[in-house]
Amino acid sequence: MNKWVYFFGNGRAEGRGDQRELLGGKGAGLAAMTALGLPVPAGFTITTDVCDVYYRKERRWPTGLERQVRQALGRLEKVSRKSFGDAANPLLVSVRSGAARSMPGMMETILNLGLNDRTVEGLARLTSHPRFAYDAYRRLISMFGSTAKGIPRERFDQELDRVKEERTRPRLGIDPGVRVADTQVDEAELREVVHRFKKIYVEQTREQFPQDPRDQLQGAVNAVFASWMAEKAVTYRRVEKITGLRGTAVNVVQMVFGNMGEDSGTGVYFTRDPNSGENTLYGDFLVNAQGEDVVAGIRTPLKLSEVQRILPDVYRQLARVRRILERHYRDMQDIEFTVEHGKLYILQCRAGKRSPQAAFRIAVDMAKERLLTREEAVRRITPEDIERLFYPVIDPSVPAQDLERRRLAQGIDAVPGAAKGEIVFTAGDAERLGAAGRAVILVRRETSPEDVGGMHAAQGILTSTGGKTSHAAVVARGWAKCCIVGCEDVQIDSDQRVMRANGRVLRQGEIITLDGSSGTVYEGEVPLVRPTLSPAYGILLGWADRFRRLRVRANADTPKDAQKAVEMGAEGIGLCRTEHMFFETEERRLAIQEMILAETPERRRAALNRLLPFQRADFVGIFEAMDGRPVTIRLIDPPLHEFVPHERSKQEALALRLGISVEAVAQRVEQLREANPMLGHRGSRLCLTYPEILDTQVRAIIEAAIAVRRQGKAVCPEIMHPLVMDAGELEILERRTRAVADPLIRASRMKIKYLVGTMIEVPRAAFLADRIARVAEFFSFGTNDLTQMTMGLSRDDAGRFLPDYVGPSRVFRTDPFQSLDVEGVGGLMKWALDRGRSSRPALKVGICGEHGGDPASIRFCHSIKLDYVSCSPYRIPIARLAAAQAALEDKKRR
Amino acid sequence: MNKWVYFFGNGRAEGRGDQRELLGGKGAGLAAMTALGLPVPAGFTITTDVCDVYYRKERRWPTGLERQVRQALGRLEKVSRKSFGDAANPLLVSVRSGAARSMPGMMETILNLGLNDRTVEGLARLTSHPRFAYDAYRRLISMFGSTAKGIPRERFDQELDRVKEERTRPRLGIDPGVRVADTQVDEAELREVVHRFKKIYVEQTREQFPQDPRDQLQGAVNAVFASWMAEKAVTYRRVEKITGLRGTAVNVVQMVFGNMGEDSGTGVYFTRDPNSGENTLYGDFLVNAQGEDVVAGIRTPLKLSEVQRILPDVYRQLARVRRILERHYRDMQDIEFTVEHGKLYILQCRAGKRSPQAAFRIAVDMAKERLLTREEAVRRITPEDIERLFYPVIDPSVPAQDLERRRLAQGIDAVPGAAKGEIVFTAGDAERLGAAGRAVILVRRETSPEDVGGMHAAQGILTSTGGKTSHAAVVARGWAKCCIVGCEDVQIDSDQRVMRANGRVLRQGEIITLDGSSGTVYEGEVPLVRPTLSPAYGILLGWADRFRRLRVRANADTPKDAQKAVEMGAEGIGLCRTEHMFFETEERRLAIQEMILAETPERRRAALNRLLPFQRADFVGIFEAMDGRPVTIRLIDPPLHEFVPHERSKQEALALRLGISVEAVAQRVEQLREANPMLGHRGSRLCLTYPEILDTQVRAIIEAAIAVRRQGKAVCPEIMHPLVMDAGELEILERRTRAVADPLIRASRMKIKYLVGTMIEVPRAAFLADRIARVAEFFSFGTNDLTQMTMGLSRDDAGRFLPDYVGPSRVFRTDPFQSLDVEGVGGLMKWALDRGRSSRPALKVGICGEHGGDPASIRFCHSIKLDYVSCSPYRIPIARLAAAQAALEDKKRR
Repeated sequence: MNKWVYFFGNGRAEGRGDQRELLGGKGAGLAAMTALGLPVPAGFTITTDVCDVYYRKERRWPTGLERQVRQALGRLEKVSRKSFGDAANPLLVSVRSGAARSMPGMMETILNLGLNDRTVEGLARLTSHPRFAYDAYRRLISMFGSTAKGIPRERFDQELDRVKEERTRPRLGIDPGVRVADTQVDEAELREVVHRFKKIYVEQTREQFPQDPRDQLQGAVNAVFASWMAEKAVTYRRVEKITGLRGTAVNVVQMVFGNMGEDSGTGVYFTRDPNSGENTLYGDFLVNAQGEDVVAGIRTPLKLSEVQRILPDVYRQLARVRRILERHYRDMQDIEFTVEHGKLYILQCRAGKRSPQAAFRIAVDMAKERLLTREEAVRRITPEDIERLFYPVIDPSVPAQDLERRRLAQGIDAVPGAAKGEIVFTAGDAERLGAAGRAVILVRRETSPEDVGGMHAAQGILTSTGGKTSHAAVVARGWAKCCIVGCEDVQIDSDQRVMRANGRVLRQGEIITLDGSSGTVYEGEVPLVRPTLSPAYGILLGWADRFRRLRVRANADTPKDAQKAVEMGAEGIGLCRTEHMFFETEERRLAIQEMILAETPERRRAALNRLLPFQRADFVGIFEAMDGRPVTIRLIDPPLHEFVPHERSKQEALALRLGISVEAVAQRVEQLREANPMLGHRGSRLCLTYPEILDTQVRAIIEAAIAVRRQGKAVCPEIMHPLVMDAGELEILERRTRAVADPLIRASRMKIKYLVGTMIEVPRAAFLADRIARVAEFFSFGTNDLTQMTMGLSRDDAGRFLPDYVGPSRVFRTDPFQSLDVEGVGGLMKWALDRGRSSRPALKVGICGEHGGDPASIRFCHSIKLDYVSCSPYRIPIARLAAAQAALEDKKRR
Repeated sequence: MNKWVYFFGNGRAEGRGDQRELLGGKGAGLAAMTALGLPVPAGFTITTDVCDVYYRKERRWPTGLERQVRQALGRLEKVSRKSFGDAANPLLVSVRSGAARSMPGMMETILNLGLNDRTVEGLARLTSHPRFAYDAYRRLISMFGSTAKGIPRERFDQELDRVKEERTRPRLGIDPGVRVADTQVDEAELREVVHRFKKIYVEQTREQFPQDPRDQLQGAVNAVFASWMAEKAVTYRRVEKITGLRGTAVNVVQMVFGNMGEDSGTGVYFTRDPNSGENTLYGDFLVNAQGEDVVAGIRTPLKLSEVQRILPDVYRQLARVRRILERHYRDMQDIEFTVEHGKLYILQCRAGKRSPQAAFRIAVDMAKERLLTREEAVRRITPEDIERLFYPVIDPSVPAQDLERRRLAQGIDAVPGAAKGEIVFTAGDAERLGAAGRAVILVRRETSPEDVGGMHAAQGILTSTGGKTSHAAVVARGWAKCCIVGCEDVQIDSDQRVMRANGRVLRQGEIITLDGSSGTVYEGEVPLVRPTLSPAYGILLGWADRFRRLRVRANADTPKDAQKAVEMGAEGIGLCRTEHMFFETEERRLAIQEMILAETPERRRAALNRLLPFQRADFVGIFEAMDGRPVTIRLIDPPLHEFVPHERSKQEALALRLGISVEAVAQRVEQLREANPMLGHRGSRLCLTYPEILDTQVRAIIEAAIAVRRQGKAVCPEIMHPLVMDAGELEILERRTRAVADPLIRASRMKIKYLVGTMIEVPRAAFLADRIARVAEFFSFGTNDLTQMTMGLSRDDAGRFLPDYVGPSRVFRTDPFQSLDVEGVGGLMKWALDRGRSSRPALKVGICGEHGGDPASIRFCHSIKLDYVSCSPYRIPIARLAAAQAALEDKKRR
């Protein structure tokens, strides 16, 4: 007989904390916390297998489940000394979903199950709190009605509002325009609310609200299962790339009540500050409230420091729980709790989401506290943490009075970083404009799971309600997307597409800037800069550098890029694209265009000679910045037609400047047009056809090297020939390269060593790598083109059909242009590497395609023993980390 | 001491007939013939090594050469019983070049060396023929002067003419306008000519004509060496791809004179008829003439049959020589001879050039005569012999000056043969006029699949752009249709229906003639002849079929093609391109365009359903023609944009027909444009995106198979998915294919076996062939695309830089699109084959790229053990022969 149900309570649990796949994250956490002796309400977990079987059996419960639920309920009754459906001493339970991976706000929860017309009276008697009992009952009816039966939630909300207007407002004499709070509704009115809710239930479902708590339980469990397949949950899993889950577990837990008065309440806390990583309790507490109220962000909660003041004993317990859980999980935790008449209950714990800054600080601090080893600390950081670390902030050089003048409103700093963009008021607008490449800020009263798409498309999110654990804050934090919540200064009219704040009126399309780190909203555009890095970042990457074997270089084309690269930790330049230099100024552009239009080698050489000083000066700057680190310089690569103007007006300007007819310009441009430019006249083919281009570029490199060497600095140029397909071809290029370089070096009387090597980006070159390596001193895999040619996929065109190929259970799991096709392109790389080293054991091999900055690809590069990866400067820290993690993974496996 | 000089004479020779590399073809022939006891004038050969050393030593004679020449001259004097420079009994010699490979007309000859002011008198006395002696002397001065000293030949010719005018004409009273023949110039006049020639010599060289015969000899030898490096010779070797030769040998041979009277003469004969191959003496004889006179074609020679009448003894000797030489060389010979006072001298022999018809007849006859084995006979035929056998050619009887006058432009000889017709500039006009029975030549800048109908209707195709593997060339080759591409001399204005070439303007409707074998375009109509196939052709290919292991299939897209293929000996169809069927009629074209423009699967399916009956009918025709032989059908392959009209007018027509706006048509066409269409949305990617295309095509194939099977005929369809890159991708396609096919077959209650396989044309698929073969039942190497992707070379664009890559001592010896890149692409093929068979030993593997019809590539396919090659119908005989020759080569090696 399958075990479908796992009980926990009274310090003992059938499940274990490591059974996340089976029990879901929440269920495993409850089991673990129970076993750790923490004050967890008793209950039981229906496994994720049940959800799986439920869907495979066309939404029927598997055999034995009903009996096991009945037995578990019996144990719960025994432990709680209450009885399900017993009017004298009713057991109330909550039913919550919980998959193996957290999907915040995506799935359903129903509280207060067990209440009916009879037990509500019992609860009222037992708690001496009839208002509370009827409030709980009306909540159950609306939650069950909407969740299990699909009745629109607004129907209930409107009815509650109506009772408030008809009765509460006149009774209390509240002025029109002033909001009537839920807490102001009295017992009698709540009885009326319950009465009306039951009427709505009957109208909408043609059946009575179920009075048998077992029916309520079954309906609630099925509602949780249904939420697993609800469109928003499916979309969320797709967006977040969550795959391989069996389904959601269902947790049935005895109710505890935070809404039992001023000595009760409910809250969420983190064991460390999720924004800064500081080692301090951090969270929100709502007095006399149930969990829903916190999440919905309807009321503004207290900071946890205030709890220390009003409920010091509770605060002490929270600190103790924190110590126990951090020691157990060896990670920062996000904990939900409720206080019922001063007694603390822990309802849930999970690894807490954190800002990237916090991730570094927590990992480093925990390593210092010996909670983690340094290796574990390095493994704890994700590439995304690093990526998010570099998100922008308000430029600190902007004068304070300038900022003050633009200051529009103040909210809660939910997710740090800054963002600016056009105001939009709906998720739909955000998605539409975002897709069109516009920067937008999504402004909402509050957000709900339906808004996730629009939130993702926006640069930043602003809500007028909610706290740091509201839906908006949690979701935005996951993406490190700038977010301000609870900004009560702002009134939003979504229909009119207008917001008001402190007397100013802003319409859709106007620009605002958010500073998520301070919670301030600014009118108009404020300059942003990238942040400075915390000491923890440097410490952790320092550790990573000690663990990794792969070296990390940068793709950098200018002296400025090169400086940035060194700053980011580059150990060399793996790809310096000479052609990028040509576009820097109008003068350079004209010289290169003249070179292309030249009809004789002499005129071509003359144009090239005009380029020479620019290139040489750039190389000098780069060599200086790199200070002896290796610099791989790729000779001209793109097809010539990319350099010439295609619009008539620009052709005219060029013709005028060059003193030739516009027809001559147009004709040459036309001649350069190719059917498949990617496989056309480009790369080393240009230097084979026009060797004077090679001559000039090599001359610029070597003369620059000599100049820098004269300053007493080391230089290490590596001259790279692109798009080579044959050893004989490379030999021609190599000979010519040395024929230019060697006499210059000899004449300089300096000692300069340089290497000559090649990109491996044409499959033929990879396949015949043993021959190529007899000529090349180094290889650099150009995996962008190697992927295109090996797979027969044009990156520019693949957009229209790759979606049919990429995805779970499609042909490829990931986009081969984002993450290396390990089997095909990777296999060919491994072949080339092995063959290349077979004929030249000292062959230096790197990668300089986009994949050089992709963690999964870096892992592969490590595994096949590449010497280095090269990527854009901002991805260098990611590469350093990924390389370290790959090495640690290796070590662990061995 | 190196041996630089090889003597021959008096029945003994120092050299041997197999020393062609050392002695050159002529020298080796003279040595062989001397050893065979044939009447060869004595002489000696200076080896090709001398030429090599001469150039390496900056045009100086190697040590010892002078002494060896002196010694050989001494032996020659002894054998001839004459003395070099002896006025009483002068020895005269000729000096001729002779490399290891024949380079007709490229190199120099000087006759009559040994004559000077004194020996000329001796010769006059000795022969009692002073006129002859002075004629010989004036020839020596002009030949030596022009060849060794670079005096323009015309200077001498003009002077001779002047003497004729001043003296001969008045003396003989010849009317003005009537030509004075050389033979009419008398002794006195020739003395004057000699006098004047010597004056020219002094004027031009500032030195006297050398009176020492040894100086003459040295000058002549150096002149021969100089001719080896003359521009025209270097160009010839490059054009003819002659590489690896050391240089030319120099043959110094005693003079014999055919111009000694009516019992003398000179001639050339073939041991068999070089046009028909008939086993009969065939040649020309000029009475009282020297060899030059024959070559120059100034006098009309006698047929050899007439020699039998006037010099029966000479004829008998010629027949005897023929027997000896054919037995010795086992091949038809081309022999130069001279008769001096009735005595026959053989001056040279070599394998005779022959027409393709003769090549077959001679090979078969010689095998029957037991001169050759059948295997040798098969090896004797060249692929070019077969190629030339099938093409109409310019009538060889058209005078050269006639052709020259009509010559209009020169392009690339894409498909040999000749064609003539009216110029048309659009495919539509070609179709219209072709349907009306008019012969047209389609003239386009370039062609695209839309033009296929018009191309088919035309007699020949001329494009101003593109190379030998451009669309026009490939399509035309498939039909063996005369085609000239890349004819840059021609400017085309399709709108005005006019073309310009070298200053001439031709309008639609004017006649041009194309010679695809030379790439020449002629104005007006040049007579053509078409060769007929001889019985020998059938016999020889029958022998070839017995020797080969490779099977030969055809690329054929229509029932007509299929019939042709069977006629040519195809053992199956290796490539049936379904998309070619779409262009056959306007109705089909519209249906496919509608399919492409469809915006829903339903509309697409509807359009496809209109195509279904056409495709099915075509498949029925093909299966019937192939009568049980395997037929590999490739599902739709080219990018969709190739199917839609790009001109506004055609888009309007299509929009009207389909009842949608022209903007909608234009927009969709624009959407289909790709940056690199070759690597874009095409091949199986189309079927993955639009599975209904796959469904319809498979349905048409299987329904046709069922229909033919019902007639009691066998069918063997092989369904092929193009451009596959992954096993998982193929699996999706394979499953869908079977899901369509199997139910149809089951419902038919017929037994039909079909295979599902794939093209291997994407490098990734080749590299991962073991996985692919787990799904595919067969592979077909699409080496056109495999070459493009493996080498990173776009066939359409490579024209502008491949010339820098292809050629002797360049990167590639041959164009990789014409002859397989054996190392790279071939290596990958071998890898794929081995890996594929490792996971499926019974895997059937063929090739269906253009290379399938290229002999060198076929040799490679044989060597890696492919099952078959597939090529266009007209290349099937070539493939049969090449496959046999490859097998015989193997056997020989073992």
